[in-house]
Amino acid sequence: MIRDTRICFIGDSFVQGTGDPEYRGWVGRVLAETRGDITAFNLGIRRNTSEDVRLRCWQEVLPRTLPDADNRLVVSFGSNDTVVEDGRVRVDPARCLDNLAAILDESRRRAIAPLVVGPPPVIDAGDAHARRTLHLADGMAALCRARHIPFIATTRALADHPVWTREAMAGDGAHPGAGGYRTLAGLVLTRQWHEWIARADQHRS
Amino acid sequence: MIRDTRICFIGDSFVQGTGDPEYRGWVGRVLAETRGDITAFNLGIRRNTSEDVRLRCWQEVLPRTLPDADNRLVVSFGSNDTVVEDGRVRVDPARCLDNLAAILDESRRRAIAPLVVGPPPVIDAGDAHARRTLHLADGMAALCRARHIPFIATTRALADHPVWTREAMAGDGAHPGAGGYRTLAGLVLTRQWHEWIARADQHRS
Repeated sequence: MIRDTRICFIGDSFVQGTGDPEYRGWVGRVLAETRGDITAFNLGIRRNTSEDVRLRCWQEVLPRTLPDADNRLVVSFGSNDTVVEDGRVRVDPARCLDNLAAILDESRRRAIAPLVVGPPPVIDAGDAHARRTLHLADGMAALCRARHIPFIATTRALADHPVWTREAMAGDGAHPGAGGYRTLAGLVLTRQWHEWIARADQHRS
Repeated sequence: MIRDTRICFIGDSFVQGTGDPEYRGWVGRVLAETRGDITAFNLGIRRNTSEDVRLRCWQEVLPRTLPDADNRLVVSFGSNDTVVEDGRVRVDPARCLDNLAAILDESRRRAIAPLVVGPPPVIDAGDAHARRTLHLADGMAALCRARHIPFIATTRALADHPVWTREAMAGDGAHPGAGGYRTLAGLVLTRQWHEWIARADQHRS
């Protein structure tokens, strides 16, 4: 039987692939390396925080699912939550985790199997932002672990990666080019991705 | 001055790039050949008719625009409208043109510059479907001409194109692979695309 797999990728500019001259991002590269015919939807929006994603999530995801399909949801945000604007972080880390939990729990209720990709670092945003994002990523990992939902960490690996950092600094300070997105795609592909894709009917688990 | 150009591509499976093993479609390929840093959003959904697109258009497009940006909208549908289901076409051609007119007029009212890409052929859908789609495409062209909105015809050129037809028949009968999407991207790029992209503040015209 051929499965009709439909995946919505929702999140921020990193999901969207901002800065990639090939307009593929990590999402397009991961899909191209995945077996099978996948119907994919990229719902990344620049500057989106977890709050923004939570607000629009089901309104945008539901018209892209089908009742009999193997529906999936990949969620990735956090790097904008930890940015300071007007003297405070855009979204408090506890609130970000609450947003993530709400999305994941609703996803399961709707029989849409979720996977979470951790927030990439914003290279030129300074050490305090880096620390906040790492801390938030650890919280997201723990939250996913408790729910047996795959979480793919990216923050530390990309902050230390010469291609990612060089391309980000040559660009707008946050977004890499094709090489950085290839690196991030590699992280996703070598962690839980293929196992998650292969798992059938996992939303009934 | 660097312009912040944001383009939403809204439509059906051909916009989405269904069947492309590289997950780039014609949209990704056109963007990769376009100068400048464009923020692009692919809002294609399989099986969508003009009716479906009209219903979700502003709800999905508006959160992706910014007040001071050069906001654009590329619309492409019609191939699903002309499909017969339960003994009748899914959307009547007059209604399809009404949907297109409503979207284009609203787009202008919102200062979002529009461009229309005509419906690609569905190779295995038979001669009657092909005739209906060609006729619909002519109606869309006339509607755009009357509004001075660029329209890029695709139906006839792709129905006659050996790469498009061969890949579609080797696939699901409707969607090509990478070569077909490259062909469609070529049509877009050699017609009004670059001129439309270069035009500044055209929405104020």
